[in-house]
Amino acid sequence: MINKIKDVNSAKLKVKKLFNYTFKNETLLLEAFSHKSFSKKNYERLEFLGDAVIRVVISNLLFKKYPKSNEGELSRETQILVSKKSIAKLSNEYKLVDALLYKNLKIKSNTSLRTSISANLMESLIGAFFVDAGYIKTEIIIQNIYKDLLKKKNKIGEKDSKTKLQEYMQSINKPLPIYETKRLPSPPHKPKFEIICKIDVEPKLTSHICSTVQEGQQKTSKFLLNKIKNEK
Amino acid sequence: MINKIKDVNSAKLKVKKLFNYTFKNETLLLEAFSHKSFSKKNYERLEFLGDAVIRVVISNLLFKKYPKSNEGELSRETQILVSKKSIAKLSNEYKLVDALLYKNLKIKSNTSLRTSISANLMESLIGAFFVDAGYIKTEIIIQNIYKDLLKKKNKIGEKDSKTKLQEYMQSINKPLPIYETKRLPSPPHKPKFEIICKIDVEPKLTSHICSTVQEGQQKTSKFLLNKIKNEK
Repeated sequence: MINKIKDVNSAKLKVKKLFNYTFKNETLLLEAFSHKSFSKKNYERLEFLGDAVIRVVISNLLFKKYPKSNEGELSRETQILVSKKSIAKLSNEYKLVDALLYKNLKIKSNTSLRTSISANLMESLIGAFFVDAGYIKTEIIIQNIYKDLLKKKNKIGEKDSKTKLQEYMQSINKPLPIYETKRLPSPPHKPKFEIICKIDVEPKLTSHICSTVQEGQQKTSKFLLNKIKNEK
Repeated sequence: MINKIKDVNSAKLKVKKLFNYTFKNETLLLEAFSHKSFSKKNYERLEFLGDAVIRVVISNLLFKKYPKSNEGELSRETQILVSKKSIAKLSNEYKLVDALLYKNLKIKSNTSLRTSISANLMESLIGAFFVDAGYIKTEIIIQNIYKDLLKKKNKIGEKDSKTKLQEYMQSINKPLPIYETKRLPSPPHKPKFEIICKIDVEPKLTSHICSTVQEGQQKTSKFLLNKIKNEK
């Protein structure tokens, strides 16, 4: 049998040390750190709540911090900051997953599982803060977690290169860029793709090799955008 | 010139009467009711914020009210309640759009424009409440607005018929349903579609005529689900 009391104590110490917070309701803390392999009462409901809490707090912080940004910029910047990718990164900095309660899960060897659980765990913990401490305290905690990511920038919510290239082609009344993807010989856990992009104003095909299709499309578009700019 | 003072007064009276609230910062109220045709400082930023505020409040209300619902049910129910369609309906009940500040906009004759602006306006007003009054007061206001929609149900977040039919076919290891759409002779502003659905366990093709493709697919799936159930 797994020693629940010892396990929740490790989560408790972590939360006290990292966020200077002690839960009034320890059941919430237990729930926030429980994977579904560990208990039927697990973090999924709190994760659902935490996701919405992070979004509103980040939206509000950006809204106040960037009075001149339009809603498209605010919305794109929020999207980046609340993405599973950003949240997993923050969770990793706090090593939250080390206090996860789970059973029979290959969490050490399976990196993508570990990343996705890390993100979920940060969301569930924030959901738990929200239920235990209310909006205002949770806002302060989230602000601290996001401190570095929220550092003042001159411009937020810039469009990504693929969108910019597409809009540029539309602005000059040319066909949209065409992307082709080739999977290169590579092991299943380390895929490699070649992304080729063809645009009407550039006779040479441009290509990039990347581990994800999205990344490759972005890099190729960025390269083409820079090229067009320099040729002007 | 449009008389701004008179106009914002009508919004002020509306908000006082409907929500029993007086803005500390009247600029916010003006912004919340201004369409971009009226002013560069318009409701779009507040709408962005209000959208996140409604989502977190509804998520939290459902989280507390349905301790036994799983995160999928909570998430689907939230999605329905915060959809533009639901919000436009609520906004229409309050006739918010009657206090909109705009210029040269065919808002009376163009129903779909009116609906979309109505939804935006409810979101921007809630964003403005949030900035002016803080989380707790805004939560109470939203709870009142959603009172009827939040009435206790036995089950929330039920899957829609199309999803259910798809999952049923997967559960019996059969191919997924195939939908076909035929546009029937109809005027552009009142389109009519015939939606045909073919599933492996039912020799007869089933079809429904509807004004939107989505509605037709749902109705056809629902009909087939009932048929399968009754035949069992």
